[in-house]
Amino acid sequence: MNFQIIRRTVGWLLLFEAIFFVIPLITAVVYWEKEFFVFLTCIALCAVLGLLCVWKKPKKDTIYAKEGFVIVALSWIVMSIFGCLPFFISGAIPSFIDALFETVSGFTTTGSTVLYGDQIEGMAKCLLLWRSFTHWIGGMGVLVFIMAFLPLSGARNMYLMKAESPGPTVGKLVPKVKNTAKILYSIYLIITVTLFVFLLLDGSMGVFEALNLSFSIAGTGGFYIKGDSLASNTPYVQIIATVFMLVFSINFNSYYLIGRGKLREIFNAEVRLFIYIVTGAIVLIVLNLLATGTQGYTLGEGIRYTAFSVASVISTTGLVAADFDLWPIFSKCILVGMMLVGACAGSTGGGIKVSRVLVLSKGAGHEVKRMIHPHQVKKISLDKRIVEEDTVRSINAFIMAYIIIYIVSMLLVSFECPSFEVAFTSVAATINNVGPGLGAVGPTGNFAFFSSWAKLVYIFDMLAGRLEIFPMLVLFFPGTWRKK
Amino acid sequence: MNFQIIRRTVGWLLLFEAIFFVIPLITAVVYWEKEFFVFLTCIALCAVLGLLCVWKKPKKDTIYAKEGFVIVALSWIVMSIFGCLPFFISGAIPSFIDALFETVSGFTTTGSTVLYGDQIEGMAKCLLLWRSFTHWIGGMGVLVFIMAFLPLSGARNMYLMKAESPGPTVGKLVPKVKNTAKILYSIYLIITVTLFVFLLLDGSMGVFEALNLSFSIAGTGGFYIKGDSLASNTPYVQIIATVFMLVFSINFNSYYLIGRGKLREIFNAEVRLFIYIVTGAIVLIVLNLLATGTQGYTLGEGIRYTAFSVASVISTTGLVAADFDLWPIFSKCILVGMMLVGACAGSTGGGIKVSRVLVLSKGAGHEVKRMIHPHQVKKISLDKRIVEEDTVRSINAFIMAYIIIYIVSMLLVSFECPSFEVAFTSVAATINNVGPGLGAVGPTGNFAFFSSWAKLVYIFDMLAGRLEIFPMLVLFFPGTWRKK
Repeated sequence: MNFQIIRRTVGWLLLFEAIFFVIPLITAVVYWEKEFFVFLTCIALCAVLGLLCVWKKPKKDTIYAKEGFVIVALSWIVMSIFGCLPFFISGAIPSFIDALFETVSGFTTTGSTVLYGDQIEGMAKCLLLWRSFTHWIGGMGVLVFIMAFLPLSGARNMYLMKAESPGPTVGKLVPKVKNTAKILYSIYLIITVTLFVFLLLDGSMGVFEALNLSFSIAGTGGFYIKGDSLASNTPYVQIIATVFMLVFSINFNSYYLIGRGKLREIFNAEVRLFIYIVTGAIVLIVLNLLATGTQGYTLGEGIRYTAFSVASVISTTGLVAADFDLWPIFSKCILVGMMLVGACAGSTGGGIKVSRVLVLSKGAGHEVKRMIHPHQVKKISLDKRIVEEDTVRSINAFIMAYIIIYIVSMLLVSFECPSFEVAFTSVAATINNVGPGLGAVGPTGNFAFFSSWAKLVYIFDMLAGRLEIFPMLVLFFPGTWRKK
Repeated sequence: MNFQIIRRTVGWLLLFEAIFFVIPLITAVVYWEKEFFVFLTCIALCAVLGLLCVWKKPKKDTIYAKEGFVIVALSWIVMSIFGCLPFFISGAIPSFIDALFETVSGFTTTGSTVLYGDQIEGMAKCLLLWRSFTHWIGGMGVLVFIMAFLPLSGARNMYLMKAESPGPTVGKLVPKVKNTAKILYSIYLIITVTLFVFLLLDGSMGVFEALNLSFSIAGTGGFYIKGDSLASNTPYVQIIATVFMLVFSINFNSYYLIGRGKLREIFNAEVRLFIYIVTGAIVLIVLNLLATGTQGYTLGEGIRYTAFSVASVISTTGLVAADFDLWPIFSKCILVGMMLVGACAGSTGGGIKVSRVLVLSKGAGHEVKRMIHPHQVKKISLDKRIVEEDTVRSINAFIMAYIIIYIVSMLLVSFECPSFEVAFTSVAATINNVGPGLGAVGPTGNFAFFSSWAKLVYIFDMLAGRLEIFPMLVLFFPGTWRKK
């Protein structure tokens, strides 16, 4: 284990976090808020510690797979611990575990909160902006961001990208990882700005509000500055949010290909399945809502609220326009199912990922075919390319690790859950980085009532979900720390 | 597709079913019940149809994998349709779908019922015995039974055994399948008789009652002749039931090995994990019950009820001594988790099977190790034997098919479920052949309130669960019926 390179990368991360803090610092200046000094302290702290870690160059600068996973997992933990300091020091969130929960929920783009509506609305603007901005940083990945700027440890940083980027495989868009990272962040920035402009066009939103919402949607996070999320916003804003939540659920590689004129490439097998799921879910839920007369929705409202909720859940954003906890069980089951599936690989969304579901379903289908014709064994292919055995095996292992963590988490938090539904969906909401679940943790509820112990479980789940489980497991695996 | 061999095997099945009906027929004579004529009619019907199907010898008597799956799936459907006739014709269960549900629940050793307590207690004794006896037939598998007696189509009938026996792999105990089947049924019979004798020893039970309970426990079914299941029985009976539910959850091959003096072989990796799960669950639930003061149980009661419920759920029997729906969420979550895991392969129990969970967990563990040391790739092994790639792949496909059927079933029945919990656990209870779930389908509830439509979904799930999914999928796969 190359501890020196781990120290140095985490050091760089702290320096970058100091830079990130400048944005809420400016906000504090603009709105003349006393939290200015809090952010100044945090910047100083991160800068000093970061410099100390970065100062001494490591003897060897190679990163192997093991170091890659450890760096990513540690970076996210360190980033969250320092990221929660503004909430904690300012007293906005007096409990450290609560502040950590909120920050991990931010960076992992979960959007689950320990705050009640009036607490959110009473918070200083600079803190609110930091809360939303964590979504934006975490969405594409902070190490990917650092890679775009720093000449990190040569060719080996592909391992970092693999460990931090969501999805079963990571494709480099261009030969150099550094340039791939730059392209991804450029696309991310362009679409975020586009969204920001669209939100301002309505006139119902101020710059501050639109900026917060843009960060939240771009990272498929879910935090917002209002207690009722988007429920009281105009239909225009809700529709724009719906569209962009879906836009940010699609593999960013697709947008690069569009940019290069390969318009057709966007409709690969994963995106097609994603569209089918979204369309199917909207049709079924709208019919269910109208047939049961739920909430007295008109057809228009039904479609708008359904499309919003479906987009919010499958993109794992977790913004709320209508309280889907009041919807019929059938609709709720569809939403919970979509929480698990999640977005496309290589997007900012969470969940198991559509491409994994696709490969796994194909695997099951192949097995049935193999039973009928045992000698016509074919390999699983996606978009006419064969999926490598290693990838298939890795996806299967992922699902099993996912299920194990899911069940263990449910057991650990079940002591404090008022119902089976809350136990099941609170874990679904955190491990898939969605945000709200059903019942007490539903759209109008929050995670405040849990003990610190349960919150730590959810913190682990959010990190495990965002980093796709293995980096967090590697961290806790004794063999990682053994010498040779 | 060799349709002639399918016809002939299903024919043999009907003839055997006619013979099975003789047992309730004798019961009707003993208790002088008018349902005698119902069973006589059913025997005549099965015998005539069976003879018609068996009469003409097929040109070719080879069974390939495809035919194996189709024969097994069709046999179970045909057996259930004819098996439900006594309930339907006698008017004991006036709705055909209800009668079919009850019979499928019997043969698949599920034990979910559409009957209320007073309906069960008011039923003719011969019908009750038939209801319990279906568990015994279904537990070890009816085709395995037929194989033990008939010289079915030569060496190829391994495919039948593979498709009907639970677990990822099927080992022949002796070179001939026919003899393996005989050995398995002999073991089954011996342990059932032992259980029967133990139940009679208490003195609190009559012969009829003990016979019903023996069939139910041996098949890990769950039907019983009393409305409150075993809640009002003596502690002795409850303890005997607990022990034997666990005995029937263990791979029958182990008992063969014990019989041959290889006492140690019983504690293979699967059985060890099974014991750990059972022990761990009992300890955790007892602590949870006592700490929360649930139902005011004493330590003794707590242990007895917990051990009973744990054994009942993990063996997927579904008998009830205490209403675990009233227990805390933590205990309920453990029980639901065990419903999914189920018993050991090669037993009469259902669920995913401990050995599959073991292989899948090892797969996830190996993946973590592979991330730390990418070049030390080892294969998954169980009891020092390498698990073949094909088996691992098949297990992964099984899990995915299981999850897909689970989710689709939940969606289909969710229209009629009063809560998410009922939707989730009613599918868990049927697809894992457990019996009771939580809430409305809990230990004191039943499946009567569902529409015929939902019942058909559960019927499919029970069959899919018992036959381990693929035979049922093969049946509905268009490629199966296509010529070449």
